[in-house]
Amino acid sequence: MIVDTLLKKIEEKDNPTVVGLDTSFDYLPEEMRAGVSCADGAAEAVYAFNKKVIDAVADIVPAVKVQIAYYEMYGVSGMRAFADTLRYAKEKGLVVITDAKRNDIGATAECYAKAYLGETAVGDASLRAFDSDFLTVNGYLGSDGIKPFLSKAQNGEKGIFVLVKTSNRSSGELQDLKLENGKTVYEYMGQLVEEWGSGLIGASGYSCVGAVVGATHPAQAEVLRREMPHTFFLIPGYGAQGGTAQDLKVCFKQDGTGGIVNSSRGILCAYRQETYKGLPFDEAARQACLAMKADLNAAIKG
Amino acid sequence: MIVDTLLKKIEEKDNPTVVGLDTSFDYLPEEMRAGVSCADGAAEAVYAFNKKVIDAVADIVPAVKVQIAYYEMYGVSGMRAFADTLRYAKEKGLVVITDAKRNDIGATAECYAKAYLGETAVGDASLRAFDSDFLTVNGYLGSDGIKPFLSKAQNGEKGIFVLVKTSNRSSGELQDLKLENGKTVYEYMGQLVEEWGSGLIGASGYSCVGAVVGATHPAQAEVLRREMPHTFFLIPGYGAQGGTAQDLKVCFKQDGTGGIVNSSRGILCAYRQETYKGLPFDEAARQACLAMKADLNAAIKG
Repeated sequence: MIVDTLLKKIEEKDNPTVVGLDTSFDYLPEEMRAGVSCADGAAEAVYAFNKKVIDAVADIVPAVKVQIAYYEMYGVSGMRAFADTLRYAKEKGLVVITDAKRNDIGATAECYAKAYLGETAVGDASLRAFDSDFLTVNGYLGSDGIKPFLSKAQNGEKGIFVLVKTSNRSSGELQDLKLENGKTVYEYMGQLVEEWGSGLIGASGYSCVGAVVGATHPAQAEVLRREMPHTFFLIPGYGAQGGTAQDLKVCFKQDGTGGIVNSSRGILCAYRQETYKGLPFDEAARQACLAMKADLNAAIKG
Repeated sequence: MIVDTLLKKIEEKDNPTVVGLDTSFDYLPEEMRAGVSCADGAAEAVYAFNKKVIDAVADIVPAVKVQIAYYEMYGVSGMRAFADTLRYAKEKGLVVITDAKRNDIGATAECYAKAYLGETAVGDASLRAFDSDFLTVNGYLGSDGIKPFLSKAQNGEKGIFVLVKTSNRSSGELQDLKLENGKTVYEYMGQLVEEWGSGLIGASGYSCVGAVVGATHPAQAEVLRREMPHTFFLIPGYGAQGGTAQDLKVCFKQDGTGGIVNSSRGILCAYRQETYKGLPFDEAARQACLAMKADLNAAIKG
């Protein structure tokens, strides 16, 4: 199952870091941005940047998370760069997570599932539109919005991460509300995630239905880690958003497994930091990944 | 403000129907599907179908809702057909709603807002990637996930519809949960929507922050109509999903305003119904829109 593959890669590389390819055109070095004056050009430059980052980190990280919004904003050209990025990362042996937070019901959710996790039949042929190993999804619509993804998950060859407790400041507005029974909305969502994953548990003990749990809310993350023993966490909020390795330690079990931590800007824009001054952006990205690995492992295993 | 434009068009056409272009390739007549064997071909056929439907209904309906999942599944080619469909509908004077249920925070939500409601700067130029009048969004992440859309809404030139009470059977799993204070999650979301819209209320008395409220849950819709006086409803669930005009009547105020009702399959596949047998698909779609108009108006104004 894909969750086992992900855990194996984390173990092999001894690194629970996922590189977030939220590649804003502004993140590119001046020389890659110069002269670009159309969407095609911007999208191509973003893809060229992504390729170099992937090349620089593929041997030290297990996965990339590609945030689709940064590609949608360049229209059709952007979507091509997105598809190319997924393909390239996969070729380099990385687990590929598409961060698209998709959500819908029935036949429509099935279309999304085909687009990201399955295939679309066209005549006698078929197309893997934006082939990913995992897709992030939003569970506000309930089981009808999740099951079509699971049925396309090809018995665990693919997986999803469901938003449970997001990293942003206002996530509590809805997610921290107390229900009649004393539980919070995020705990309830966590419980649904455990149920949805119950048929897709791999040899690792984790299911192919993961949860998004922010590094910025340690108290809530601790509750969720306890209540969701079979759920693997995708953890945003480290670095630029303010979450530290100490904060997110609670997302991990005593054996050091339990989650993978995303960093985007901290890696993509490392070359602009004082620490990595003078390094090319790809080498700076690599160094930032290694520093993050050390920081995470010291906290999680320390 | 765009909400006033939408209301005006509904009034002019005396028709609170929005045509859902959830155009599954399977919905196309045999002769349009024959020989198609690649994603490009499928996407082009879907666009050709959409154009004929738009031509057939543009003078009798105020708006179309384009469900992006049906296009994403055809990859980059599908996204081109999606963009072309939006553009064509706009040229024909229709209000264009993109149903994408996007959701994210901060800079990422801004990217989505640029993609669908604003523009993306590229050098000295700018791009309107998938230019829509309204975008559906999911509010599970709280205000951080909504405000970037509002800030790109250009003072009401654009709008959003936030999922409040969705039409699917399992929507109650999360949305109907009772909170400590006795209110439900959907009521709470409704209250947030009223707050988010408070700065964007048009001459019509409705705001540019609308709500998705399913036709299939009349009891909940009645509560929401009462508690959300400034919120315009986008109402899915009519027809194929089982909602009747009598069910959704509660989404409207005494003056006959308050929402717009979506039908997708019932219109796109009307040509397969016994009632419209022998008619070309576009003419059948037109007849189905007129029948829906009569059905809705009889219930709402009756």
